[in-house]
Amino acid sequence: MAEPITVDDPADPRLHDYTGLTDVELRRRREPAEGLFIAEGEKVIRRAGQAGYPMRSMLLSAKWAGPMRDVIEASPAPVYLVDPQLAEHVTGYHVHRGALASMGRKPLPAPAEVLSGARRVAVMEAVNDHTNIGAIFRSAAALGMDAVLLSPDCADPLYRRSVKVSMGAVFSVPYARLTDWPHGLATVREAGFEVLALTPAAGSVPLDEVAAHRTDRVALLLGAEGDGLTARAIAAADRPVRIPMAHGIDSLNVGAAAAVAFYAVTTGRPPA
Amino acid sequence: MAEPITVDDPADPRLHDYTGLTDVELRRRREPAEGLFIAEGEKVIRRAGQAGYPMRSMLLSAKWAGPMRDVIEASPAPVYLVDPQLAEHVTGYHVHRGALASMGRKPLPAPAEVLSGARRVAVMEAVNDHTNIGAIFRSAAALGMDAVLLSPDCADPLYRRSVKVSMGAVFSVPYARLTDWPHGLATVREAGFEVLALTPAAGSVPLDEVAAHRTDRVALLLGAEGDGLTARAIAAADRPVRIPMAHGIDSLNVGAAAAVAFYAVTTGRPPA
Repeated sequence: MAEPITVDDPADPRLHDYTGLTDVELRRRREPAEGLFIAEGEKVIRRAGQAGYPMRSMLLSAKWAGPMRDVIEASPAPVYLVDPQLAEHVTGYHVHRGALASMGRKPLPAPAEVLSGARRVAVMEAVNDHTNIGAIFRSAAALGMDAVLLSPDCADPLYRRSVKVSMGAVFSVPYARLTDWPHGLATVREAGFEVLALTPAAGSVPLDEVAAHRTDRVALLLGAEGDGLTARAIAAADRPVRIPMAHGIDSLNVGAAAAVAFYAVTTGRPPA
Repeated sequence: MAEPITVDDPADPRLHDYTGLTDVELRRRREPAEGLFIAEGEKVIRRAGQAGYPMRSMLLSAKWAGPMRDVIEASPAPVYLVDPQLAEHVTGYHVHRGALASMGRKPLPAPAEVLSGARRVAVMEAVNDHTNIGAIFRSAAALGMDAVLLSPDCADPLYRRSVKVSMGAVFSVPYARLTDWPHGLATVREAGFEVLALTPAAGSVPLDEVAAHRTDRVALLLGAEGDGLTARAIAAADRPVRIPMAHGIDSLNVGAAAAVAFYAVTTGRPPA
């Protein structure tokens, strides 16, 4: 462990990992480039550590030094104690949860690697809202999806807001990025998955007719709120499927649709 | 129809329905007391009208007078044309959608009335977040729930934020409020519904074991994000049920949980 260090200069270079956290564009560029992400709050910091992400440093208000004692003792990473005003000055916002950690990223596995042991996989196209990515990961983990694949333009699951909304579930489900889109879907099909594209388009099959009672490998392809899947992605899938709609409503929000689809493909039991 | 009136005094008493829209506490008291609610944006205003809510007035920026011409012509309600700065001054925010309508509330039906023709019903306890209420109504409508019942402390489905998040679905699903809680659940059971309480508590039965392939009447009881259902509500239900969780995740968010549960009870087809 490292003895906690009290820092009272907001320009101290040791706080560099935590500067400008509210500047989404800046952090979106900086974090992957510098190989870090920010975990916020005791629970999320603990989960990130348990998932094997190496800690670079922690930024704590003094009252969190006690509750985080075991985390501090288990890591060689430096721990900076700051007062709440200084934390706000550095990060740009009032850090309600009183504890931030800068964690090192791990290299993402290759798609084939996350697919190898999986039976139920979610594939997202162009979901570039951090809240939606986080919510979908939370549902994917909770409902027993085995892995997540992302198109090149999906948002970063390790961005602070995604991690927070996911309640740390981004650490629980293996994920990878497909670099070639939508051709990368061929990798998924070659691994033995039937790729089901979730879309309200005409000709799509009701989800409950195809999802339940399956023992083979299924990949669910989901598009972004609003636009939905591109025609190219739907064409690269095996079958279009839809969640039947009632009362003249045209769609569910993407988080609700994802949860329903995950439930449908994970919970079907083989007929007795 | 009434000829649109240009208003340029923010203190004009005819704009009273639209004052202080960002003051949640004020509006939460005023709107039910004055028998009104605010519909925002062309689509939501049209849906409110189609659902039979009487229009009290509209507040439009000039460019919306054209697209809303048919709505204006179909109603005797006064239409006030204002510039965007005045709209912001009156309401407290920048009205992106350029059109607001003050609609008259209708008396809520009695619980027995909304239950009479229904087969699948959602019952919410203490869901007092306007965003969650809206999201749950959207899913309830989209997934074919026939009615919604609210405990006395649930938030107002006709609050501006709820209406917006629901995409107008609060107008599509009949709902009522139970005044006596949780004793009012007896009304639901007496109407022939089995009341299933959604809870991760020990002893609960996996949802997929009880929800699918049912032809009888089912009511799903849902609690708020965080606290979940009270012990009293669970005790007043017939059976506790749960959505099975994986990867060590302890819960779904309430919107995702509701969507999954609605899908589970509405989509099960009788075995062939």
